[in-house]
Amino acid sequence: MDHSIRILTEEMLRACVPLDRQAISLVGNAFSALSGGAVVMPPVLSMNLPEVHGEVDIKTAYIPGFNEFAIKVSPGFFDNPALGLPSLNGLMVVLSARTGIVEAVLLDNGYLTNVRTAAAGGVAADCLAPKVVQTAGVIGTGVQARLQMKAAHLVRSFERVIVWGRDRGKAEQCARDLQQDLGIPAEVSDSAADLVARCQLVVTTTPATEPVLQANWLHPGLHITAMGSDQSGKNELDPDILARADLYVCDNQRQCETLGELRTAQAAGYLVGSSLPELGAIVRGAVSGRVSEEAVTVCDLTGTGAQDTAIAAHALAQAAKADQGFSVPARIG
Amino acid sequence: MDHSIRILTEEMLRACVPLDRQAISLVGNAFSALSGGAVVMPPVLSMNLPEVHGEVDIKTAYIPGFNEFAIKVSPGFFDNPALGLPSLNGLMVVLSARTGIVEAVLLDNGYLTNVRTAAAGGVAADCLAPKVVQTAGVIGTGVQARLQMKAAHLVRSFERVIVWGRDRGKAEQCARDLQQDLGIPAEVSDSAADLVARCQLVVTTTPATEPVLQANWLHPGLHITAMGSDQSGKNELDPDILARADLYVCDNQRQCETLGELRTAQAAGYLVGSSLPELGAIVRGAVSGRVSEEAVTVCDLTGTGAQDTAIAAHALAQAAKADQGFSVPARIG
Repeated sequence: MDHSIRILTEEMLRACVPLDRQAISLVGNAFSALSGGAVVMPPVLSMNLPEVHGEVDIKTAYIPGFNEFAIKVSPGFFDNPALGLPSLNGLMVVLSARTGIVEAVLLDNGYLTNVRTAAAGGVAADCLAPKVVQTAGVIGTGVQARLQMKAAHLVRSFERVIVWGRDRGKAEQCARDLQQDLGIPAEVSDSAADLVARCQLVVTTTPATEPVLQANWLHPGLHITAMGSDQSGKNELDPDILARADLYVCDNQRQCETLGELRTAQAAGYLVGSSLPELGAIVRGAVSGRVSEEAVTVCDLTGTGAQDTAIAAHALAQAAKADQGFSVPARIG
Repeated sequence: MDHSIRILTEEMLRACVPLDRQAISLVGNAFSALSGGAVVMPPVLSMNLPEVHGEVDIKTAYIPGFNEFAIKVSPGFFDNPALGLPSLNGLMVVLSARTGIVEAVLLDNGYLTNVRTAAAGGVAADCLAPKVVQTAGVIGTGVQARLQMKAAHLVRSFERVIVWGRDRGKAEQCARDLQQDLGIPAEVSDSAADLVARCQLVVTTTPATEPVLQANWLHPGLHITAMGSDQSGKNELDPDILARADLYVCDNQRQCETLGELRTAQAAGYLVGSSLPELGAIVRGAVSGRVSEEAVTVCDLTGTGAQDTAIAAHALAQAAKADQGFSVPARIG
């Protein structure tokens, strides 16, 4: 049987799949399906390669009703910058959900992961941040610092953004980029504590292994999204934050228990042995999100295969519509 | 940085990567590295999709000294034949072992898996079969029945081949194909017991979940390779065979304990709690293989990510030499 496989490069995918409300909406729907229990999502396959200072993570998920599912390969090779190469790259393979036949290869170098990760932050802000956010803050100065603030701004039209990072120069560059991108004033804070004090919405985007945000900084009407921890050694939030918050929400409880902020909180004896609310349950209205403007809420994002399948299916549809991609003839059978 | 990714179709890979002595040799070297402990090989990621009668397995392994490593995606969707499509297909992604950057995508629809699986049978026959094999037999009538006999014939120049399968018509077709391919007489046996009685080398290639080969059929000077079981529900050999054999060898003990013949044997109380010889240890001379022409030997093959990395690296080198493949421009960074 004649068959063709669509190959899309990062450049094509950047043109087809912007970080926009549609991306936030479809990632929200993926969370909804995931927390509804219909999604098949095996544990992440992680291969650690100390010999070359590298690691590879493979994620996948099948979402009923989707025509495709994605398998995402995310390598991280941390000696790459010395070679002039980025540490993170990778691709997604898209398979038919009916036949398993390869439909497309998305050579995104991690771009789609960046979009679906930021979109998850947008979903969290939409479900959990106070209705009125005047000032949003981001801890960290990398790609996700920029994208998380962009996603949050799509759902809460805050008037000011504050950046804090260990490297003041990088924080200043991040603030300049955000000011230009969002068209609002952006500034650098002298400390993470000062940033939190002045914000109603804070996103942590660091690879920290020790808390960068302390429980005694909490104040009424604060929402925190911690998206940096996606491995068992990482930790951004003081465990007491999870204990003291009025509402703690995870993207996927099984993953957060091993890879997220929930891991250190449970190690400290908090939130143990209970079924915790997942973001998707709030999206579909099965669980309440923020119940008052004064509440303190926390969302723990580790990144799920369901998001990958959702963004990959969207990317493929957008590319088909725009007639983008290389077509490789691949006879089957 | 400018970068290009090589995309190879099944047709190109069939032309570049025949099942030959070189394939057997390189798979033998992969086993050698695997049993030497230097290979990083995470457990198989398995996703079961009962809703669509499908499954997906993902295997990978890093072999020190190789420039690349492969990630193999193997979907099996068992309603496909009704659609005129094969049940099994899939692809391999080849990454640089130094930077993690995607080098190639091998759209092999399972062809390379067929080659590396048959090559493993060739390694097993070479290490374990009697020096003189006059008659070889195969139980099963599918693609691997043909390829296993072809691989075995590359290492033992037997004069006759016997086929047995539940479907006599398929067994006859398989025998005709083997007679033509190997250029030796091929016949169909009336029973598996009769086949075993007349052979010095037997390969089982079935998806059986109950034994197709019984312990009371064993005779001096017999080698059996069981390559059908690669999942926890499968079983081709009577567990007593593993207990009675003079030598039992596995491709990878951890995998065979959950996916291979070793699983049912250990459930019956045999070979429990000990470190068992792996095929690679015999390849590199760390462990003895067959010690006499009269011995009964058994090899249990479940299929390893190390084989995938070895065959993928070989395929990429052959394709580069032949200047085969589509080149996709994929700027990095």
